[in-house]
Amino acid sequence: MNKTFIATLLKWLLLGGLIGLIIGSTTAFLLTTNDWLGEVREQNSWLIYCLPLAGFVLGFMYMVLGTKSGNELYKGNNLVIEAVHGRHPMLKRLGPLVYFGTFLTVLFGGSTGREGAAIQMGGSVAQTVNTYFKVPNIDTKILLMSGISAGFGAAFGTPITGAVFGMEMTALGKMKYEALIPCMAASFIGHFVTENVWGVTHETFIIQAVPEHSIGAFVKVLLLAILFSLVSVFYCQLRHGIHTLSEKLTKKNHMIRALVGGLIIVLLTILVGSYDYNGRGLDMLEQSFKQDVPSFAFLAKLIFTAVTLGTGFVGGEAIPLFFIGATLGNTLYQFVDFPLSFLAGVGLIATFCGGANTPIAAFLLAVEMFDAKGIDYFFVICLTSFIFSGHHGLWPSQKIYEPKS
Amino acid sequence: MNKTFIATLLKWLLLGGLIGLIIGSTTAFLLTTNDWLGEVREQNSWLIYCLPLAGFVLGFMYMVLGTKSGNELYKGNNLVIEAVHGRHPMLKRLGPLVYFGTFLTVLFGGSTGREGAAIQMGGSVAQTVNTYFKVPNIDTKILLMSGISAGFGAAFGTPITGAVFGMEMTALGKMKYEALIPCMAASFIGHFVTENVWGVTHETFIIQAVPEHSIGAFVKVLLLAILFSLVSVFYCQLRHGIHTLSEKLTKKNHMIRALVGGLIIVLLTILVGSYDYNGRGLDMLEQSFKQDVPSFAFLAKLIFTAVTLGTGFVGGEAIPLFFIGATLGNTLYQFVDFPLSFLAGVGLIATFCGGANTPIAAFLLAVEMFDAKGIDYFFVICLTSFIFSGHHGLWPSQKIYEPKS
Repeated sequence: MNKTFIATLLKWLLLGGLIGLIIGSTTAFLLTTNDWLGEVREQNSWLIYCLPLAGFVLGFMYMVLGTKSGNELYKGNNLVIEAVHGRHPMLKRLGPLVYFGTFLTVLFGGSTGREGAAIQMGGSVAQTVNTYFKVPNIDTKILLMSGISAGFGAAFGTPITGAVFGMEMTALGKMKYEALIPCMAASFIGHFVTENVWGVTHETFIIQAVPEHSIGAFVKVLLLAILFSLVSVFYCQLRHGIHTLSEKLTKKNHMIRALVGGLIIVLLTILVGSYDYNGRGLDMLEQSFKQDVPSFAFLAKLIFTAVTLGTGFVGGEAIPLFFIGATLGNTLYQFVDFPLSFLAGVGLIATFCGGANTPIAAFLLAVEMFDAKGIDYFFVICLTSFIFSGHHGLWPSQKIYEPKS
Repeated sequence: MNKTFIATLLKWLLLGGLIGLIIGSTTAFLLTTNDWLGEVREQNSWLIYCLPLAGFVLGFMYMVLGTKSGNELYKGNNLVIEAVHGRHPMLKRLGPLVYFGTFLTVLFGGSTGREGAAIQMGGSVAQTVNTYFKVPNIDTKILLMSGISAGFGAAFGTPITGAVFGMEMTALGKMKYEALIPCMAASFIGHFVTENVWGVTHETFIIQAVPEHSIGAFVKVLLLAILFSLVSVFYCQLRHGIHTLSEKLTKKNHMIRALVGGLIIVLLTILVGSYDYNGRGLDMLEQSFKQDVPSFAFLAKLIFTAVTLGTGFVGGEAIPLFFIGATLGNTLYQFVDFPLSFLAGVGLIATFCGGANTPIAAFLLAVEMFDAKGIDYFFVICLTSFIFSGHHGLWPSQKIYEPKS
C-alpha cells in the first residue's frame, strides 16, 4: 500500500465519479424528455407523417457537423469503441447531437431505443473530462469506458451491468480489469444521480414463475437461446444491409437517405395499421410479460427498427432488441411449456446478448432486471447466445480477441 | 454457422461435460467423506493428538510420490495454474493424493477447507481426459480450466461461480472467454451430479436483512471491504511466511515439517481450550450468521489455518477464509450499525475475494450463496477487496496481466 496506489485509486474514483455525476444528470434529461416526447406523439398520431422531414433535418445536422459526409458521426457507438482502441478520436459533439437525433426519432415515431444516446453522451462527457484534466493518452481509454458504463448503468437503472458493460462492450472475447474502479464509480454514481437526484423511475419487467430445474428444462432453454441468438444475427445483418444499401443508393446524401427511410416507416405504419412499432414500444414490451401480444409483433418491430436505424435515425438498439426478443418469447408460449413471463425474459436477454456480444453483462442485466429469478438458466442462455451469434453484432468495431470457435 | 463451428462446440460440450460428470462424482465422494471424518473427529477428540503423526505420513507421501522433495506436488493449486499457463505439466497423481491428504487433515483436526482438493482433482481428471483423447496442447489449457470450474462449482454448489472461477482464477487482471463453453458445461454438470445423482446438500448461509441503500451505507461497505481485504493479505503473507520458514528450517524434509506443524496445532488447541478452530469449522461459520461468536475467533482461525497449510497439510483455503471473514464481520457487529448476518456475509465474500483475486467470481458467489440479497453492495465489495489486496493472494502463480495500480 503505497502513495502511488492511493493516488491512482483516488484519481480513478474522482474522475469516474465526476463522469457519473454528469452522465447521471444528462441521462435523467434524456429519459424524461423521451417519455414526454413519446406521450406527445401518442396523443398526436399525425406526427408520424413528419418523420421523413425529421429525417431530412437529422441527416442535414450530421452532414453539417461532421466531415466526410458525417460518416464518423454516423458511426455512433462504433465511434466510441474505436476511440477506446485509439483508432479514431472521440468527438465531443457526438453526445449532444445524438440526444437531439433521438428526440426527433422518438417524437416523430421512428423505432428506436436509448442506450446509443446514453453511451455516446458518455463518450463525449468522458472526452471533455479528458481534455479538461489533460489526462494522458493511455488513461483516455479507461475514461471512455467509464463513460460507457455511466451511460448504460444510468439509462437502464442497472449499475452492476453498467460497470461490466463498459469493460466488456469494446472487445469481443475478453474482459480486462484495468478500468474496474472508474467504471464502477461512474455506473453507480450515474445510476444514483438519475434515480435519487432526479427521481427518474425505470421500467420493471417481472418474471412471475421460473421452470423447475431439470435436464429437459436446460435443453429447452439452450435451444431457445440459439433461436433468439439467430434472430439477433438476422436483425444485425438486416440493419447493416439496409445501412450499406441506403448509403450506396443515396451516394451518402444522408438527408435523402433518412427522408426515404422516414417515408418507408410511414408506409409500414399504414400497412400494419397500428402505432405499436413506432417509438420505443415500451407498452407492448411490458405487455409481453403479462398477456398475449400479436404473433408477428417481433418481426414487425425487427423491420421497423432495421429501417429506422439503417437509414440514419438514431437512439439505440437495446430496447428494440428487448422488444423483439420478449415478444417472440411471448409468441412461443403457444409451443413451449414454460411460464409466459419467463419466455419473454429469456427472449429479452438472449436477443440483447446476441446483438451486444457481452455475455457477462447480459447475464448481470438478467440478475438486476428480474430480481435474480432463474439465474442458472440465464447464465446458460447468455453464454449460448454469445457463442451462436458468431462475430455478427450491433457494433462491427468490437475488437475480436478470441474467435468464438 | 459452419461445420467447424458445430464440431468445435460439440467437442467442448462433450469434453467439458465428461469432466463435469467425473468431478461431480469425485466431489460428492470428497464432501461426504469429509463430513463423515469430521463427525468422527468431533466424537473422538483424542484424534487431534495424532495430527503430528498424520503430518509425518502426509509429508512422506508427498516426498515419495513427487520429485525434488515433492515440491511440485506441494504447489497444489499453483501447479494447476502453472499447467494452464504451460509452465509445468499437470500431474495426474496430484488429485488422489490431495484427497487423501485432505481426509487426513480433516480427521485429525488440521484447519482446512475443500476447494484445493476439488480444484486439484479437477486438474488431474482434466489431464487424464487430455491424455485419453490426445487433445492438442493448445486445448489442454482450456480443459484444465474446465477442471477447475467443475471442482469449484461442485464443491460449493454454485455452478455459475464455478464456471467463471475457472476462467478468472488463473490470471490476475483479465478474463478471456475462450473457455466459456467447456467451463460452463463442466461446472453445471459437476454441480448437477454432486447434488442430484449423489444427493449431497450444501451449507446455506442466510442473510436476514440488508441495509437500505444510502451513500453512507456504501461508504461503510467500502471501508469494510478494505479492512477484510487487508485481513486476507495478512493471512496470505503469514501462510507464505510460515511455508518458507518451515521449509528452510527443515531443509525441505516435509515429514518433519508437517510433524512440527501438527505439534503446534495440538499446542494451540490446548491453549485456546476448544476444538472450534480445528477441521473445517462449519458449525461456527454457520453460527456467525445467526448469533455471537467469540470476538477473536477470526484471529484464532487465521493462525490455525496458516500453520496447518503453511506446514504442509492440505485441503483448501476458501472455507477458512469464509470463516475468518464471517466471524470478523460478526465481531464488528458491536461497532458497525449493520444487520449481523449481512456483516458476516460481507466478511465472507470480501475476505475470499481478497485471497482469490477473482472479483467477478466472488461477486457471483455472493449472488448464488445469499440468494441475490444486497448485490449492489457485494459488487462494490468485491471490486474494492480485489483492488486493495494488491498482488498478494493465495496463489502466487496467478499471471499478472494488469498491475492493479
